[in-house]
Amino acid sequence: MQFHHNGYVSADPRVQPAAGTGLDRLEQLPDEMDVLIVGAGPAGIITAAQLSAFPDVHTRIIDRRPGRLQIGQADGIQSRTVETFQAFGFAERITAEAYVITETAFWNPDPQDPGRIIRTDRTADDPTGVSEFPHLVVNQARVIDYFAEFAANSPARTAPDYGWELKELSVDQAGDYPVKAVLTGCGEDNAGIERVVRAKYAVGADGARSNVRRCIGAKLAGDKANHAWGVMDTLAVTDFPDVRTKCAIHSSAGSILLIPREGGQLFRLYVDLGEVPADDGGRIRQTPLEEIIRRAQAILKPYTLEVKDVAWHSVYEVGHRLADRFDDVPLEQAGTREPRVFIAGDACHTHSAKAGQGMNVSMQDGFNLAWKLGYVLSGRAPQSLLRTYSAERTVIARDLIDFDKQWSSMMAASPAELEGKEGVAEFYVRTAEFPAGFMTEYAPSELTAASAHQHLAAGFPIGKRFKSGQVMRLADANPRHLGHHHRADGRYRIYVFADEHPAGQSQKIADLSDWLLGSERSPIVRFTPAGADVDAVFDVKVVYQQDYAQMDINDAPKVFRPSVGKFGLTDYEKVYTTLGSPDIFDERQISRDGAIVIVRPDMYVANILPLDATDALASFFEPIMLQQHG
Amino acid sequence: MQFHHNGYVSADPRVQPAAGTGLDRLEQLPDEMDVLIVGAGPAGIITAAQLSAFPDVHTRIIDRRPGRLQIGQADGIQSRTVETFQAFGFAERITAEAYVITETAFWNPDPQDPGRIIRTDRTADDPTGVSEFPHLVVNQARVIDYFAEFAANSPARTAPDYGWELKELSVDQAGDYPVKAVLTGCGEDNAGIERVVRAKYAVGADGARSNVRRCIGAKLAGDKANHAWGVMDTLAVTDFPDVRTKCAIHSSAGSILLIPREGGQLFRLYVDLGEVPADDGGRIRQTPLEEIIRRAQAILKPYTLEVKDVAWHSVYEVGHRLADRFDDVPLEQAGTREPRVFIAGDACHTHSAKAGQGMNVSMQDGFNLAWKLGYVLSGRAPQSLLRTYSAERTVIARDLIDFDKQWSSMMAASPAELEGKEGVAEFYVRTAEFPAGFMTEYAPSELTAASAHQHLAAGFPIGKRFKSGQVMRLADANPRHLGHHHRADGRYRIYVFADEHPAGQSQKIADLSDWLLGSERSPIVRFTPAGADVDAVFDVKVVYQQDYAQMDINDAPKVFRPSVGKFGLTDYEKVYTTLGSPDIFDERQISRDGAIVIVRPDMYVANILPLDATDALASFFEPIMLQQHG
Ligand SMILES: Cc1cc2nc3c(=O)[nH]c(=O)nc-3n(C[C@H](O)[C@H](O)[C@H](O)COP(=O)(O)OP(=O)(O)OC[C@H]3O[C@@H](n4cnc5c(N)ncnc54)[C@H](O)[C@@H]3O)c2cc1C
Ligand SMILES: Cc1cc2nc3c(=O)[nH]c(=O)nc-3n(C[C@H](O)[C@H](O)[C@H](O)COP(=O)(O)OP(=O)(O)OC[C@H]3O[C@@H](n4cnc5c(N)ncnc54)[C@H](O)[C@@H]3O)c2cc1C
Repeated sequence: MQFHHNGYVSADPRVQPAAGTGLDRLEQLPDEMDVLIVGAGPAGIITAAQLSAFPDVHTRIIDRRPGRLQIGQADGIQSRTVETFQAFGFAERITAEAYVITETAFWNPDPQDPGRIIRTDRTADDPTGVSEFPHLVVNQARVIDYFAEFAANSPARTAPDYGWELKELSVDQAGDYPVKAVLTGCGEDNAGIERVVRAKYAVGADGARSNVRRCIGAKLAGDKANHAWGVMDTLAVTDFPDVRTKCAIHSSAGSILLIPREGGQLFRLYVDLGEVPADDGGRIRQTPLEEIIRRAQAILKPYTLEVKDVAWHSVYEVGHRLADRFDDVPLEQAGTREPRVFIAGDACHTHSAKAGQGMNVSMQDGFNLAWKLGYVLSGRAPQSLLRTYSAERTVIARDLIDFDKQWSSMMAASPAELEGKEGVAEFYVRTAEFPAGFMTEYAPSELTAASAHQHLAAGFPIGKRFKSGQVMRLADANPRHLGHHHRADGRYRIYVFADEHPAGQSQKIADLSDWLLGSERSPIVRFTPAGADVDAVFDVKVVYQQDYAQMDINDAPKVFRPSVGKFGLTDYEKVYTTLGSPDIFDERQISRDGAIVIVRPDMYVANILPLDATDALASFFEPIMLQQHG
Repeated sequence: MQFHHNGYVSADPRVQPAAGTGLDRLEQLPDEMDVLIVGAGPAGIITAAQLSAFPDVHTRIIDRRPGRLQIGQADGIQSRTVETFQAFGFAERITAEAYVITETAFWNPDPQDPGRIIRTDRTADDPTGVSEFPHLVVNQARVIDYFAEFAANSPARTAPDYGWELKELSVDQAGDYPVKAVLTGCGEDNAGIERVVRAKYAVGADGARSNVRRCIGAKLAGDKANHAWGVMDTLAVTDFPDVRTKCAIHSSAGSILLIPREGGQLFRLYVDLGEVPADDGGRIRQTPLEEIIRRAQAILKPYTLEVKDVAWHSVYEVGHRLADRFDDVPLEQAGTREPRVFIAGDACHTHSAKAGQGMNVSMQDGFNLAWKLGYVLSGRAPQSLLRTYSAERTVIARDLIDFDKQWSSMMAASPAELEGKEGVAEFYVRTAEFPAGFMTEYAPSELTAASAHQHLAAGFPIGKRFKSGQVMRLADANPRHLGHHHRADGRYRIYVFADEHPAGQSQKIADLSDWLLGSERSPIVRFTPAGADVDAVFDVKVVYQQDYAQMDINDAPKVFRPSVGKFGLTDYEKVYTTLGSPDIFDERQISRDGAIVIVRPDMYVANILPLDATDALASFFEPIMLQQHG
């Protein structure tokens, strides 16, 4: 955590100084704003949190709820999402209060006595060590709380405006604020009041029945039928021994997914209620709690389940549905005009709760979109950057739905149906990386280079998330996770892995530093706003191959020791060396001749280049950024 | 973190439900209270925080400051203290914002050119792995903030009453509130107002010039002269390469202790100003900042130091002083009457800042005292328990001062004076455990058994702090640090390390469980208040030697699976097994025949017993606790 560089701050360093629109933010929803986010669920709140790091962008986020979400909805947090929380500064805190999944147990009918269940398998949750972060279970409400805290503590001081429902939304392409939104008050003080507000851009993060989606005319395609689950957050006395372990339970009486919850007592049961016929007419949603409990008791036999309290229950009825586009540009006009309205999260895609994806993918949608909006609105990037949102995220959503269909049908299948096929446990292990959130791989585009130089750092696949590794921070001899310095501050990261020469003797590293600081073509020179710190847009770090004890920090070239802040103090947190073990060069298969690894603000690897490829480096950023001066 | 067991809570689980005196706590300082703490520095605030976990005890803490401490004073946090923070739930958060010391560098005059300094040594900060927690540097203000947050979130909802200065304090042994305190308002709203308040007990945590100490007539003994240091919290540009490393610097121009601070930029310099002559008359304290900077620049030659901003500076003038007793019972009356007033922290002992002890030892004073006050005031323990505070802590303070004298004279010695003797670096490494806070070892007393059964668990020395080790929590297959479950909740911990029999087949463990739950002599049966959970006073955990995957939680006897809370839910967090590696039995040299390890509420090992020593277990608690019923 870096602070005090503009002078001593006597307070929680997580509260950043207000700036820009955060200096005089109106309590009340104004008539005009840069971005209007509809919905303060996971997709909306992460969008607001990330945008709050852009002080010049005026963001408002409305929700028809009267206040914060209190209970219910999703609870599974993939380790990929915890990596994201790290960038927002709350990974440790939420982990400390969450349930940590380390294993999944599989229960099936006892072949000897099919009326009883027995444990047939037990698999590690992350057998391959795909992330250094754990897989968590914690209420969606707390996830939203933490993002809201981050937004409130960020320079723009963004906070939700509760009690406003979006009724209509339209775009006229003229004027400074082309998006027009009609809202109705539904809070305590504003009930029934109608407002028209205007924005430069709008984000529909308004859930599965998205009104924004309707207003922009996006089409939902997918299953005709829904699948229904009786969900209950339960406090109970039971002799089922795995009640604090994640379990997939198949019995002759039906199936249950059991998810232990935070706090040591609560657990969630998803009791399968089956496909919902098209003509059900909402009847399934009337399934009484008693019926869900009764089914759960039957499935768990011979174990007892004495339910003491149900904190929340619901019939979660959901189908596999996907919007044809995630913005307001009709497919036939794609590429001819820029989008003004976006949809994110459940507004774009819905699927079962089985693989624990909904909340996670929704947040990744928001994270992908928000920095792009921030760049365009603060004049860092051309408007065309915004096209990449729908292009990138529709593919991810489609993969997700395909995966979830397989997973759901596995989970729904009876033991007899699975006979002779791959078992649930095997499927689970084989595909573990997917539900953990690590299969996202953006195709080559102007944001993500083709893989010409992938071999220079094979362990950082271009288009996938930057997988952190441990290194030694030279200045204070602290072993650190390189990737954990990636904060959600909207900056690009440029990691320079040095060649074999020690610091002070590497001509390539010295030349690169000179070029980055001095060349007319350098992205730092071209795209950093006048008067801003040299690392305001590009955070450049170096990792040397030598032993830290043999290195003098003054031998690192200047781009890695920039003078920052109002006193021009040296930033000491950009110079690293390998640890003896693990050695990040070995772990991530980085060439001993060095490599440059470029990482997007949303943590995805954008490009890999040789140390001397300054032309390619310049060309890469040219189409996606705007010259700031000169 | 355990919560939700009395029903779902929709909020930050760190905020515990208010109870007892926390339900209707008065905003304004009342006329009567159970405990009056004078001073909200480290010693006072930890006392308040710990007492806040006793909902029936009405604690008030006053300070003459108008509000929270903002800046300055101590900053070194020993790893022992971070262990303590863990019990108060904020170790991770404060670590995330702190500077982590991993090494100390030693700089001395270059023998070739004594006008220049060179690095002569570099030592690891914790070469022996004495704790799993790091050694931190963070402002005292933030430490106080975190304890204040804990106190405010605890059942009693304790918060400081700022702007009250204690003028006089006296004790008359009669009446319910024998302590009388005269206060003068010095805040914004109460300036000049005089109040008399009465308390059952008072704690003087009012710093080196303690008024409480004066009022109870305790005598300070120690050096005649003080030693003075120019201290400055600095933002500067420098080419000194170790500016982000802790350094002891001796040059021909004097000596400096350099402490990097949190945030990546700030550092503290202690510039030695030497012994202060008895007739100095405060002149040393007039040393101007410019003079301190000038000296620092001379010492650091050939490196440059361009000071940009000084957040705080002070001439810290301190001697080695020790109060003859830490309570109001005159030495000649010791043992004949019970204390009513206590002093803690700098009020009892002062010493140099060199070994970074002041704040740390002060907090340990408060932690030692607070649970004892909580026990006596909530009727768990006889008043005589309070005698042990002065008895235990005066010894620790004396050791501290002895150590600090050695350390200070080493640091003050010129290179020539050290010629042929043990070097500073060697001394530093040899004695590292002391400043890290791990040498505290309480002598045998009614609280701390003699070491008759020490050999059953040699790695848990009786009288020293319980050194945590990793184990597997059976119910959720989560590897956990056993000791990290020790919260500052005022409970005794009883760790039962099982014999070689697997769960369900160990007769000794089954018998112990039966005895603990059923015997008239069992401390649980005798000392747990009627109607409270069975683990309200004694938190009993078991660690089996078997592989967790082979164990069924239902085989653990009932005392380790108690039914708790209003729904009688099972507590699943008391049953552990060894991890394959490390194996806690090997690491802590625990007998394969098992052992019982008793740990005090302030985390010190109180006793070690064989599994079947129920008589000894009963006898141990008899003198220190009060029967609750029957
Ligand atoms: C009742 C319910 C139960 C669920 N149960 C589960 C579950 O058991 N397991 C699981 O994995 N997932 C579950 N989900 C899905 C999971 O919560 C979502 O995948 C996740 O919340 C997606 O986040 P989001 O931000 O896209 O949408 P949401 O979390 O749905 O957030 C949308 C927000 O928009 C607001 N909003 C909607 N329309 C308007 C409007 N017109 N004007 C203003 N505000 C509006 C809503 O109040 C809401 O706060 C459930 C969802 C719901 C709604
Ligand atoms: C100015 C100063 C500078 C210091 N600098 C360093 C340093 O550089 N390095 C280092 O290691 N240590 C330093 N220390 C010492 C270190 O801060 C202490 O060891 C540590 O704070 C001890 O904690 P304590 O709670 O016992 O006392 P303190 O932190 O001194 O707290 C005492 C509290 O009591 C309050 N108080 C005092 N008298 C009254 C009264 N009559 N009525 C009401 N309230 C009262 C004070 O306002 C204060 O908040 C410094 C201390 C001071 C005062």
